[in-house]
Amino acid sequence: MRRKAMRIAIIGFGGVGRAFLRLLKDKKDELKEINPQVNYVIDYMGGIYDPEGIDIEKLADFSEKNRDITKYPIGGSPEITFDSMLANKDVDVVIEMTPTNKDTGEPGMTHIIKSLENGFHVVTSNKGPILLGYKKLKEIARKNNVQLGIGCTSGGALPTINAGIIDMAGSNILSIEGVLNGTTNFILNEMESTGVEYQEALKKAQQAGIAETDPTLDVEGWDTATKLLILTNVLMNEEKTLDDIKVEGITSIKVSDIQEAAENGQKYKLVGKTVRKEDKLEMSVRLEKLNPDNPLYGVDGKNKAVRYTSDTLGDLTIIGGASGVTPAAASILRDLINIYMGCKFV
Amino acid sequence: MRRKAMRIAIIGFGGVGRAFLRLLKDKKDELKEINPQVNYVIDYMGGIYDPEGIDIEKLADFSEKNRDITKYPIGGSPEITFDSMLANKDVDVVIEMTPTNKDTGEPGMTHIIKSLENGFHVVTSNKGPILLGYKKLKEIARKNNVQLGIGCTSGGALPTINAGIIDMAGSNILSIEGVLNGTTNFILNEMESTGVEYQEALKKAQQAGIAETDPTLDVEGWDTATKLLILTNVLMNEEKTLDDIKVEGITSIKVSDIQEAAENGQKYKLVGKTVRKEDKLEMSVRLEKLNPDNPLYGVDGKNKAVRYTSDTLGDLTIIGGASGVTPAAASILRDLINIYMGCKFV
Repeated sequence: MRRKAMRIAIIGFGGVGRAFLRLLKDKKDELKEINPQVNYVIDYMGGIYDPEGIDIEKLADFSEKNRDITKYPIGGSPEITFDSMLANKDVDVVIEMTPTNKDTGEPGMTHIIKSLENGFHVVTSNKGPILLGYKKLKEIARKNNVQLGIGCTSGGALPTINAGIIDMAGSNILSIEGVLNGTTNFILNEMESTGVEYQEALKKAQQAGIAETDPTLDVEGWDTATKLLILTNVLMNEEKTLDDIKVEGITSIKVSDIQEAAENGQKYKLVGKTVRKEDKLEMSVRLEKLNPDNPLYGVDGKNKAVRYTSDTLGDLTIIGGASGVTPAAASILRDLINIYMGCKFV
Repeated sequence: MRRKAMRIAIIGFGGVGRAFLRLLKDKKDELKEINPQVNYVIDYMGGIYDPEGIDIEKLADFSEKNRDITKYPIGGSPEITFDSMLANKDVDVVIEMTPTNKDTGEPGMTHIIKSLENGFHVVTSNKGPILLGYKKLKEIARKNNVQLGIGCTSGGALPTINAGIIDMAGSNILSIEGVLNGTTNFILNEMESTGVEYQEALKKAQQAGIAETDPTLDVEGWDTATKLLILTNVLMNEEKTLDDIKVEGITSIKVSDIQEAAENGQKYKLVGKTVRKEDKLEMSVRLEKLNPDNPLYGVDGKNKAVRYTSDTLGDLTIIGGASGVTPAAASILRDLINIYMGCKFV
């Protein structure tokens, strides 16, 4: 008996999208039960549509060499758009991977809303819509009895959302504390281990492809703030904005500060933290000196970590999270599988 | 509209069972959606049955003072047994919390099998049946389209099973490495921080109520081996037994060993480890000298931790897990909620 396929639309076909396709190809045998069938791949130029399922191997090969998917010989066309998918409705899950816009959330916001309203599950890597309107999106998902997987938006391979929802089920999360940005972690490590000042360490990180040419988002703390905001709103049922977080970066730290801390057995980390104090939520991103008994102390290099404290399940720290497009794609696949398996995230 | 209740039978009413009842009482408002209704509480002397749901507050008060639940005024009787529950069938989930027997698994094994066969979900804290027959139990659960929650059997509040199944979904676990026993961790810490020898540190652990009067299971490594075996069989789909694990304890370590390691910046931990080498699985429990860059290095005192490596999601280390009956009960509640929410563990 052939199992019913899980019909997928991939919206946004950049690095993570292509890695996701490769993953579906490489894990074909393991995914037999889920039987994923990609009916659509769509990006801003147009898309590919095959109601019988796009040949993943062929498309993976094609897209290694050719970025214009509208040229794909079987079903590729500038006419295939998000709206044509909505009109056809032959989809079970929409994977939304368009570029993040933190001011408007578009085009992801519209994609996600319309997909949920049409009864499609959504899994997304797009931080913008989650930052700006998670509560609203959650309501829409619930109303339409579909799921919204957002694991990739806060930590990628590090299962911050899973851990907060599934692993802490039945307990209340009282605080969130995380080392959530690999770039600043790398820079601080570099300063400590080689004794170079910030600018030099940043340059090294840029040469290693870890920091971007414009590193502002990372080094000024905004990437950490974004992830902290998503975790706080999702796991503590809040509707905070970036304005509610006191954000400081790492740009003014000196090697002498780091060395002084090291002499006391301490380490500086850029920590994002949400703590409920009486009835107020305090949210901050700033350099903190951690003692060795803090489980975040040892989170080095490109690793990330988050620690939750709770009322009945004690503390939980999760450390890990490989970086890059394949682990990010694997976190999309994780959400997809868990939704297929019946887990409820909203 | 009143929601349909989730009807529960509590089988085995020791410390964790009573803590679980208190948790249901304390979290009544939070659990409104699930609407748990305890129809049975049964132990070896008999039980309590109320088809409309036992008054949890009253029973919690009663059982603080009185261990013989058959004396409970509303529905308590020596005639109420596991079999009477099977005959009535007015249950959705059986919480199996009878004492562990690692040789026969009984009476838990029979309870779990019959419950699953009768179409009840099962959540258990009982290591015996899981150790001896997880694969068989999983098959029975699948065949009867019900779930089997075993989170409490390996790490309690530390979500080792959740993390391995849900947080690593879509990736293959290549190795498992854990500091899974709080007692040995405490003893090794004590030796390091105060410079006393093993016997002295053990005595302290016993006085603090952390080590048992007969500490063999902990200090000889068998508790760690048991948890490692469960994780290996469940997460790597194996059918190993304790005989397949090379087990060494901590009883012969000297303070001088610990100090020598400390001078090199290393720490001794009792590590349970499963690694796939070529086509063979190597399983061991033994003292290992860990470097500071190992995420298990900082797992101190009563904390526990496990680290998974995977093919596509990188490494994941989880650290935490409060000890005691309330966190253990909270891990039972976690499984219950996740099963209610639709997560599939088998």
